[in-house]
Amino acid sequence: MILTLACPDQPGIVARVSAFLFERGANILDAQQYDDQETGRFFMRVVFDPAGADIDALREAFGEVAAAFSMRWSLRDPKVKRRVMILASQQDHCLADLLYRWRRGELPMEISAVVSNHPIETYANLDLSDVPFHHLPVRRATKLEQEAAIWKLIQDTDTELVVLARYMQVLSDGLAAKLEERCINIHHSFLPGFKGARPYHQAHERGVKVIGATAHYVTADLDEGPIIEQDVERISHRDTPAALIRKGRDIERRVLARAVRWRLEDRVLLNGAKTVVFTD
Amino acid sequence: MILTLACPDQPGIVARVSAFLFERGANILDAQQYDDQETGRFFMRVVFDPAGADIDALREAFGEVAAAFSMRWSLRDPKVKRRVMILASQQDHCLADLLYRWRRGELPMEISAVVSNHPIETYANLDLSDVPFHHLPVRRATKLEQEAAIWKLIQDTDTELVVLARYMQVLSDGLAAKLEERCINIHHSFLPGFKGARPYHQAHERGVKVIGATAHYVTADLDEGPIIEQDVERISHRDTPAALIRKGRDIERRVLARAVRWRLEDRVLLNGAKTVVFTD
Amino acid sequence: MILTLACPDQPGIVARVSAFLFERGANILDAQQYDDQETGRFFMRVVFDPAGADIDALREAFGEVAAAFSMRWSLRDPKVKRRVMILASQQDHCLADLLYRWRRGELPMEISAVVSNHPIETYANLDLSDVPFHHLPVRRATKLEQEAAIWKLIQDTDTELVVLARYMQVLSDGLAAKLEERCINIHHSFLPGFKGARPYHQAHERGVKVIGATAHYVTADLDEGPIIEQDVERISHRDTPAALIRKGRDIERRVLARAVRWRLEDRVLLNGAKTVVFTD
Amino acid sequence: MILTLACPDQPGIVARVSAFLFERGANILDAQQYDDQETGRFFMRVVFDPAGADIDALREAFGEVAAAFSMRWSLRDPKVKRRVMILASQQDHCLADLLYRWRRGELPMEISAVVSNHPIETYANLDLSDVPFHHLPVRRATKLEQEAAIWKLIQDTDTELVVLARYMQVLSDGLAAKLEERCINIHHSFLPGFKGARPYHQAHERGVKVIGATAHYVTADLDEGPIIEQDVERISHRDTPAALIRKGRDIERRVLARAVRWRLEDRVLLNGAKTVVFTD
Repeated sequence: MILTLACPDQPGIVARVSAFLFERGANILDAQQYDDQETGRFFMRVVFDPAGADIDALREAFGEVAAAFSMRWSLRDPKVKRRVMILASQQDHCLADLLYRWRRGELPMEISAVVSNHPIETYANLDLSDVPFHHLPVRRATKLEQEAAIWKLIQDTDTELVVLARYMQVLSDGLAAKLEERCINIHHSFLPGFKGARPYHQAHERGVKVIGATAHYVTADLDEGPIIEQDVERISHRDTPAALIRKGRDIERRVLARAVRWRLEDRVLLNGAKTVVFTD
Repeated sequence: MILTLACPDQPGIVARVSAFLFERGANILDAQQYDDQETGRFFMRVVFDPAGADIDALREAFGEVAAAFSMRWSLRDPKVKRRVMILASQQDHCLADLLYRWRRGELPMEISAVVSNHPIETYANLDLSDVPFHHLPVRRATKLEQEAAIWKLIQDTDTELVVLARYMQVLSDGLAAKLEERCINIHHSFLPGFKGARPYHQAHERGVKVIGATAHYVTADLDEGPIIEQDVERISHRDTPAALIRKGRDIERRVLARAVRWRLEDRVLLNGAKTVVFTD
Repeated sequence: MILTLACPDQPGIVARVSAFLFERGANILDAQQYDDQETGRFFMRVVFDPAGADIDALREAFGEVAAAFSMRWSLRDPKVKRRVMILASQQDHCLADLLYRWRRGELPMEISAVVSNHPIETYANLDLSDVPFHHLPVRRATKLEQEAAIWKLIQDTDTELVVLARYMQVLSDGLAAKLEERCINIHHSFLPGFKGARPYHQAHERGVKVIGATAHYVTADLDEGPIIEQDVERISHRDTPAALIRKGRDIERRVLARAVRWRLEDRVLLNGAKTVVFTD
Repeated sequence: MILTLACPDQPGIVARVSAFLFERGANILDAQQYDDQETGRFFMRVVFDPAGADIDALREAFGEVAAAFSMRWSLRDPKVKRRVMILASQQDHCLADLLYRWRRGELPMEISAVVSNHPIETYANLDLSDVPFHHLPVRRATKLEQEAAIWKLIQDTDTELVVLARYMQVLSDGLAAKLEERCINIHHSFLPGFKGARPYHQAHERGVKVIGATAHYVTADLDEGPIIEQDVERISHRDTPAALIRKGRDIERRVLARAVRWRLEDRVLLNGAKTVVFTD
């Protein structure tokens, strides 16, 4: 089981949580804590072997502990896979990569749906045979309806996490708000550098020597959501914008995959406009 | 205070330790655990605010907890700086870097001595004014005596950690044994590649595309001690051995400085022939 | 057109080559030179716009220049794609990645064949519809026959480059010799560290803090071929061998893809047991 | 000798330059070219052994070639070291590092002066014994006079390159204009992210996962000068602003040292608002 929690810091949290687990016969396999001394918030992730304890009873009992410490918490069985919806557009490198990793067992998830504003033929070389695909085209005038359809699909499919895999539509504030802490986007620049459109062209024009990509939670404030992961690669004056786009695809797919995996393994905790990431 | 411990894994360790601290009014500021499921060994590092508790009493009381769990443990006040001896030879880049970082407050230590098999004039450009310097020359025939002098100096100066900052003499098995877990060396290659002498020349000859450096505990088995930290840099066919040596200096000094800092902050725990490093 | 050449160094090579091109109306778009002062060998890669010049005549005329300087040389039209055979085994991450990049236009090649010692069902999630697939199973007793079949296929399909995409069979000395400078392997360690079998398990056991992968030309001397590209990633004590294998897949596929692309773009020149790589 | 040149691209440049050198008996040791197809500008760096040719005659003769191609060019004897002035403020890590590298022979320069707005006591642990030191304090009201003094010193000392080694004063537009392409600054962020003051605090607040530093030519437009080199390091949520500043020092000093070395070796050519860097 994986227990995550965040609460105002005070003495005794670790003692209370670990005693709770010990008394019920559970054995801690891995644990990480972080105390943000700036905000006074405490974060914890515990992986434990319940050793036969009744999970529902455990959950109910822990609710009282959590209430006493004003915790925001979650208790999950990692064997129950999260349901994830992937949104894509024309560029399919992140989609292809996520599908590949999912089939290899790198990403503990069920794919509830792949949604695209482009038709399925766009992905003729990808194996979508065992994945529900939905073509939801969008024009400016139909954005409202399309987003309503996405939202309905999220609900109908019990989707817990939405991944924007180079989905080239900006979510409306309304949809972003509904998906708080449940929607990860990959931005093709090393934020906060080169916000907005065509970041590789911006990077080329500025003459930077390193490019990057950023996986972040989607918020109403475009390109300002809490950052989960970033990575970079060196470039040189020889790199055209096309070369940057090519090199960038490699960065984007590995940054997004890491962020999604960490999220699926309950390693990402929200800390205001930032994240705490208990990496492996 | 910083508490570190390692012991055979069993349920209840975190609960026992955190309850112990809570009962005495201490507040946990940072904690990391690791359970090596291969060897069944459990490792923990806890930083806590003792909040006025009597440290000697705390230490004595914890001794009983430790005994019950067969812990190897340490409880230290980070404000009491460790005494560190630096051994150097002709190449002074690691020595210069450690001195600089020490003066900047990056390394929480007192320098008990700088020892070299070269005279102090070798370091004419370094400020050794506030550091005890000892010239202990060595030839094959006098190695035994020189090592005895080093060992005496370690004892006389209450040295807790010895840093081989590109010290170009191999310690004898006897001295290495005395300094178990207390002596860090920087090897100028990405171990286990290029063991032995002139690793940059070996790397050049092999035509590798990345070079590295390795900080490790010294053991009787040369270049086989537990690795604490490694880092690398890209090179190209244009790099001569001289260029590799130059680039390598940069890697060596940052790898050694990181390893020393982590060791001084009780972040490095021995796990058989390997290390657990609770990085910041 | 791309011209590459290697020859003993002497004054006047660049002057002679560039005058040759200028006199025929060609315009140099990119050029890189390297003079190995250790071996006295000179290397050059020139990309030029022939501006309507007759290529066959150009090639014939350049033959005389080349002879005068004892050059090993090649003149290629980059629009004529090289024919590449990919050999794979059970692990398909490198194969999947090469196929994806090929379809995206990142790798200027035609796939002459995909050959595996496993049946096509192994790759059920990959789109092999437009790629000739050959199942050539192998046992110890049939290795000779299987390699003969591979060699026949190489000849029948006009294959110019063979890529061992985590092909888990060691080529015999005979086949390796036939494929000199035409066969790239990806080794799943940072050579020369952890040669031989199960390198990630070796790395885990040694407790290294960085793992890597190496793309190299295949030679009769296993794991000793000229290195084309290497890359690495940080790991920690928390990483199990399984985690190293997972992280390693990412390193392997990007290292192999880079090496293959550079080779296809005539950026890799052999320099004894090493390579000169004129990167972009 | 090192010849660098930039000019509008046209066929025959390499042929003309290499023929020029060959006819005078010179031997090319290293050469790199770059043709910016966006701007139509051609860049070249040639290292050659003049083999006894008269340099002054060579220079005069090459002037005619250069004029014919409208070249911006430079011909330098690398054995004649450039005179470099270092400007520093309270933070001395870049100054200390440059001094160390200079003494080690990594930076082919003479130090014409070290100038600081702080008194020499600030650098009590640095060996400034063989370096002319000038204390030029500055307040808002005296900035004009101080900059005039700096400019006079630059002229009096035949300074060719000015390095702002974490000099915490913004140069006026006037002084920046006088020092075009001759003044390198280190900015303690990964530009264009976190321009302006206290970039590490900005980075901490934004919650980025990677920090960096940028060496660039100083222009009137603050933080917008042509970028010469950048590098980065991973951070985590555990890093306080103080930790970022500490980690940043390491990045800053190596980025600045690389940029200065490349500039001293004539590897940095200006390309509009960007740079071409012919790295080694």
